[in-house]
Amino acid sequence: MNFADQLIAKIQSKKTPLVVGIDPRADRLPKSITDAAAKKDTSLSEQYLQFSTAIINVVAPLVPAIKPQMAFFEELGPQGMVALGQVVEHAKSKGLLVIMDGKRNDIGSTAAAYAAAYMGPKPGSSWGCDALTVNPWMGHDSLSPFVDAGNKFGAGIFALVKTSNPGSQNFQERVSDGRPMFEWIAEHIQKLAVETKGQGAYGIAGAVVGATYPKQLDELRKIMPNSFFLIPGFGAQGGTAADVAGGFDSHGLGAVVNSSRGIIFAYEKPELQTDGQDWTDAVKQATHNAISQLRDHTPAGNL
Amino acid sequence: MNFADQLIAKIQSKKTPLVVGIDPRADRLPKSITDAAAKKDTSLSEQYLQFSTAIINVVAPLVPAIKPQMAFFEELGPQGMVALGQVVEHAKSKGLLVIMDGKRNDIGSTAAAYAAAYMGPKPGSSWGCDALTVNPWMGHDSLSPFVDAGNKFGAGIFALVKTSNPGSQNFQERVSDGRPMFEWIAEHIQKLAVETKGQGAYGIAGAVVGATYPKQLDELRKIMPNSFFLIPGFGAQGGTAADVAGGFDSHGLGAVVNSSRGIIFAYEKPELQTDGQDWTDAVKQATHNAISQLRDHTPAGNL
Repeated sequence: MNFADQLIAKIQSKKTPLVVGIDPRADRLPKSITDAAAKKDTSLSEQYLQFSTAIINVVAPLVPAIKPQMAFFEELGPQGMVALGQVVEHAKSKGLLVIMDGKRNDIGSTAAAYAAAYMGPKPGSSWGCDALTVNPWMGHDSLSPFVDAGNKFGAGIFALVKTSNPGSQNFQERVSDGRPMFEWIAEHIQKLAVETKGQGAYGIAGAVVGATYPKQLDELRKIMPNSFFLIPGFGAQGGTAADVAGGFDSHGLGAVVNSSRGIIFAYEKPELQTDGQDWTDAVKQATHNAISQLRDHTPAGNL
Repeated sequence: MNFADQLIAKIQSKKTPLVVGIDPRADRLPKSITDAAAKKDTSLSEQYLQFSTAIINVVAPLVPAIKPQMAFFEELGPQGMVALGQVVEHAKSKGLLVIMDGKRNDIGSTAAAYAAAYMGPKPGSSWGCDALTVNPWMGHDSLSPFVDAGNKFGAGIFALVKTSNPGSQNFQERVSDGRPMFEWIAEHIQKLAVETKGQGAYGIAGAVVGATYPKQLDELRKIMPNSFFLIPGFGAQGGTAADVAGGFDSHGLGAVVNSSRGIIFAYEKPELQTDGQDWTDAVKQATHNAISQLRDHTPAGNL
């Protein structure tokens, strides 16, 4: 089944475009996990797995997808990657789509190897993810192997078009032939999206567009009517629900909005701390809050 | 010790800028490895490890560094990453520098996590590599965490400036303010190189510049006098030794030239097959041939 159609079906069944980012950090794990780990001499990889699994259990009934950030697992070396593999498996077993945030990119047969690694169900792909974030800088032959794999195995990509960081101004906003570079990339991704349309308006070539540049989000929605957006930067990075509204179509489709730190570390927020409660209660509350904000301030209210 | 100084010392001691790319492929492994694996039901990850280890043993006395391509290990899932970790360890134990080809990229704390993962010796970094290829598309704050880690832990980066593939023309060659985009990125990397200079002219911020565009290689050498080049595309991708000559300074420094398939799959070449010889003999012969070509047709002859 076409990835865009799968994503739409999940969004409609959960009635929210919220994606939860799985970004574990050693210095921010809940005390209950680190205390138990200290007693049993549990590895950090195992703690990341425990943390991620608990979050997945809480959010699986509420959201369409999770987005694990590979860097934080890679930081722990090969054992971190083993834990990440188990995180993906657990999420799939709970019915979630998994958007792997690896920002991978290379050319020809090497790009095809990355695609084969991550895109589509096991055992065809070793990691068994539903989508992968990719970097488009190397051009058309660094993108087509991912799109080909996505077509074949029911998976999708989100290519970096306009990222949420200040440095996105350095090169992505440089003007060429009267248009910023990110628009030239947007045109290319839009073409790939049209070529890979599912039952609805959207294709399997999506775009990463930061929540921190709402005006550009509006413009890109017009340039890329067939491309699903993955919008990071909501919550901890400063983007509000109103800021991401421009990423949606009138049905509340066309975008998924990621929140990582604001949800997974919600137990650090004094206002979400309650005596005697499990840390996951704060995670659940923060997820509900984010869903409400998106429902109240974006077309996702129409879902 | 500054990474550029380490690299120069290794190049001068081996008297060659040749780097061997470790790019294992399931369908091109030597028959002796696949036959033994079939008997013992050995995993593909283990076969990749055997293959890579044997190549490292052959090339370690001859070249300054290897460049493992992460995609081919990631394609095998978490177990492939475990094998890759062992490949890196083996290369380090043989005195080789390890340039990890991951083309990683992200922002802020996520970029810092990738840097912490790969850059510098263990146990500070989990993977213990000497350098990492990075994608500069996300801008200054996607590069500075890597440079900071490199300064701290004696490691370096090679940022994609002009890649060897046809698609590099799509965005890298788009003109902005009278100059192609790759030159704007080159300027940025050059600044980072100046800021991180070691004993000699070179800093720890290097550039990936494809062998398939020799004219641009000449131009970039002028724009980036303090940046070491990692030149892919020599051999199998069509770049000749003469094509890469422009990447060097007059002392034969300033560039390392990668060959992957032309060396590691040398046993497939009829002219390098000899009855009764081990497959690694062809690998050794191909390594010697590549070293000779670079010595004869580039300033590396002055090493």
